[in-house]
Amino acid sequence: MDKTTITREIPDDLVQERISKLQLEMGKKAIDGMLLTQNIDLYYYTGSMQNGYAFVPAEGMPVFFVKRSLERARLETLIAVEPLGSFRQFGQTLAERIPQLFKAGGSVTVAADLDVLPAQTYFKLNQLLQSAGAVELVDGSALIRGQRMIKSPWEIKRIETAAKAVDEALGEALNVLKEGITELAWIARVEYELRLRGHIGLMRMRGYNQEVATGMVTSGAAAAVPTYFDGPAGGLGLGATFPQSVSHRVIGRNEPILIDVGCCIDGYIIDQTRTAVIGQLSEQLAHAYRTSEEMMRAAEKGMVPGTPCSELYIASLDQAAAAGLSAHYMGFGLDQAKFLGHGIGLEIDEWPVLARGFDLPLASGMVLAVEPKFTFPGQGVVGVENSYVITDGTPRQLTRTKEQLIVLP
Amino acid sequence: MDKTTITREIPDDLVQERISKLQLEMGKKAIDGMLLTQNIDLYYYTGSMQNGYAFVPAEGMPVFFVKRSLERARLETLIAVEPLGSFRQFGQTLAERIPQLFKAGGSVTVAADLDVLPAQTYFKLNQLLQSAGAVELVDGSALIRGQRMIKSPWEIKRIETAAKAVDEALGEALNVLKEGITELAWIARVEYELRLRGHIGLMRMRGYNQEVATGMVTSGAAAAVPTYFDGPAGGLGLGATFPQSVSHRVIGRNEPILIDVGCCIDGYIIDQTRTAVIGQLSEQLAHAYRTSEEMMRAAEKGMVPGTPCSELYIASLDQAAAAGLSAHYMGFGLDQAKFLGHGIGLEIDEWPVLARGFDLPLASGMVLAVEPKFTFPGQGVVGVENSYVITDGTPRQLTRTKEQLIVLP
Repeated sequence: MDKTTITREIPDDLVQERISKLQLEMGKKAIDGMLLTQNIDLYYYTGSMQNGYAFVPAEGMPVFFVKRSLERARLETLIAVEPLGSFRQFGQTLAERIPQLFKAGGSVTVAADLDVLPAQTYFKLNQLLQSAGAVELVDGSALIRGQRMIKSPWEIKRIETAAKAVDEALGEALNVLKEGITELAWIARVEYELRLRGHIGLMRMRGYNQEVATGMVTSGAAAAVPTYFDGPAGGLGLGATFPQSVSHRVIGRNEPILIDVGCCIDGYIIDQTRTAVIGQLSEQLAHAYRTSEEMMRAAEKGMVPGTPCSELYIASLDQAAAAGLSAHYMGFGLDQAKFLGHGIGLEIDEWPVLARGFDLPLASGMVLAVEPKFTFPGQGVVGVENSYVITDGTPRQLTRTKEQLIVLP
Repeated sequence: MDKTTITREIPDDLVQERISKLQLEMGKKAIDGMLLTQNIDLYYYTGSMQNGYAFVPAEGMPVFFVKRSLERARLETLIAVEPLGSFRQFGQTLAERIPQLFKAGGSVTVAADLDVLPAQTYFKLNQLLQSAGAVELVDGSALIRGQRMIKSPWEIKRIETAAKAVDEALGEALNVLKEGITELAWIARVEYELRLRGHIGLMRMRGYNQEVATGMVTSGAAAAVPTYFDGPAGGLGLGATFPQSVSHRVIGRNEPILIDVGCCIDGYIIDQTRTAVIGQLSEQLAHAYRTSEEMMRAAEKGMVPGTPCSELYIASLDQAAAAGLSAHYMGFGLDQAKFLGHGIGLEIDEWPVLARGFDLPLASGMVLAVEPKFTFPGQGVVGVENSYVITDGTPRQLTRTKEQLIVLP
């Protein structure tokens, strides 16, 4: 193994800061240990997503128990890396390695990322942990997702790198967006350009059953076809086994082309949408498109620390109503999505969500993709999506692509 | 919504046959109902992967409770589709819709796909189901995975479509495989060609934390870098956040280029590997490559109904030893993968696995990707991978790409 090629990517002090912050929050919730199981959570807290389990005690040093590759994990993280060994012995391994917690004899509350950990593995782990002591294995995912909401400058720089790549890739691909190309053929070109710029080839979603390739390019009526995907636009897709996003449909004149495409570079995601048209939009769709830009301006004003997330969504509903577009806002009929925006970072569906029930106030360092869109069955979807980081003042836009209706001849 | 564009893809009798078979197996295991939660499992048994839960009673008709999109689900499946309604009321909804099971008063055993269902959702569902009756929610994933092992001719045809696409895409992309191109730039071209042929843009894996873009193209020393991915080759990857597969490494002369690339068309996956070289391989690597082809011939002879899966793996270990290549077989050192092949279908990590402990006998209709490979740290990985369907006689090869070392000038 050429060791010169693998180095620690995350600054050491950032990992230490994240662990300390997690331990502080664990203390508040009387959680004695956090068991990290998911690759993204492992990466966030250790800098490595090798195969294994990381254990963070509320006090003291964390340990990353690695199954594979031990050698690579040791190069990627400053956290102590130890062989996972026999999975059946994991309880004993843990008890020996973290004696201050498990050998004291009392009941131990261990939290894990149960929003993603499969139930089958949960039951196995829960059983194995009993041999470490009287362990209660509870859900710690809210702690993790809560902490991950606030991005460090180091993370924001990575999101900006992704934003630059998608802007450049779209610029290249727009040269071949012409009447007669299929949605699939055009996204193929966008993805090619993204890949050349370092896109890892997939976008990570935390939600069960949710998946996204690079996003969607959907045109005219195909864009307005409803689907299972929890977003404002569905897309006809490539059949029942991929019932969203691009289809084999040929892109035509005078219909909206929704370009909701992101990428993932060095683990960090950008998400943005632009609307294009070859020719011109109908007056109704043009009105809806203009409204989406106006809603973006209103959202920008509201995106300051202290504003409850839900407030921005409710304001957007009012604004859609005032424009006479309530029925079309974020989907149509039974299939309207119930949010205005969402956190992005290592995953595309991070916290916070600009939605009812999400009353958490915005805070500096949160990164949000805001995406007011309007769906017209039989005609298409129009809208715009930008990503922003919340600052102490006005939000700073991370999306680089010029915000305007892209009109092609 | 243009209803002409969405139709039932799976033949009705295939869905009915799958449900009947599932019910038969449930009867044998005293499972009263199967709750399908994962998108692939939903698709397999209903023909639709819209967002919701399908419930299959051991006797009687299944119901697909859909959150979104109800309209689309109704066009995609012949199974009864009903609104999921309030998730909190799901227990009552189920009790009312399946009265023969829940209103009888006794204890009801419900199985679900707990190998993929997140623990958090499991606990919610378990709680909600208690209001339907005295429900025990157990793991039914082995039933599902076991049934899905045997592919119908309809499924095999789809895998063949994917096999044709990857063969054509590689043929095109090989035209630009030249000294000096990076692994990333070359896979970008392969993926572009795959996408034009209908690749859905991702490959589905069932295993927790396992992910794959289209596969891997790794050259020389970069191919032999170990990683978390549970396969014979890792790959340097694009950093700690995607520590596998392609890297920014420039492909050079006289080093092996491992091309382990598949695609997913209409939901079905093909998986194959070829080894290429610009110039020539060293005698050691050439010997290992020839051995991998010889191992493929031996596996073909053994792949007949009745052979235990584990037997093929153990035979391959002996063959690697006879060639003096044990230390290099399926990885190196601590990071050797412990299998010879795996099932493919809707997911890339299906059952059966040609591995120790998997003593199930092969049966007609199973589809397997067989991948003997050899890893040489500092030098690279060589090998070959073909996919086959088990028949009553000799296995039928589904992979189309000519099996030979690809030698480029």
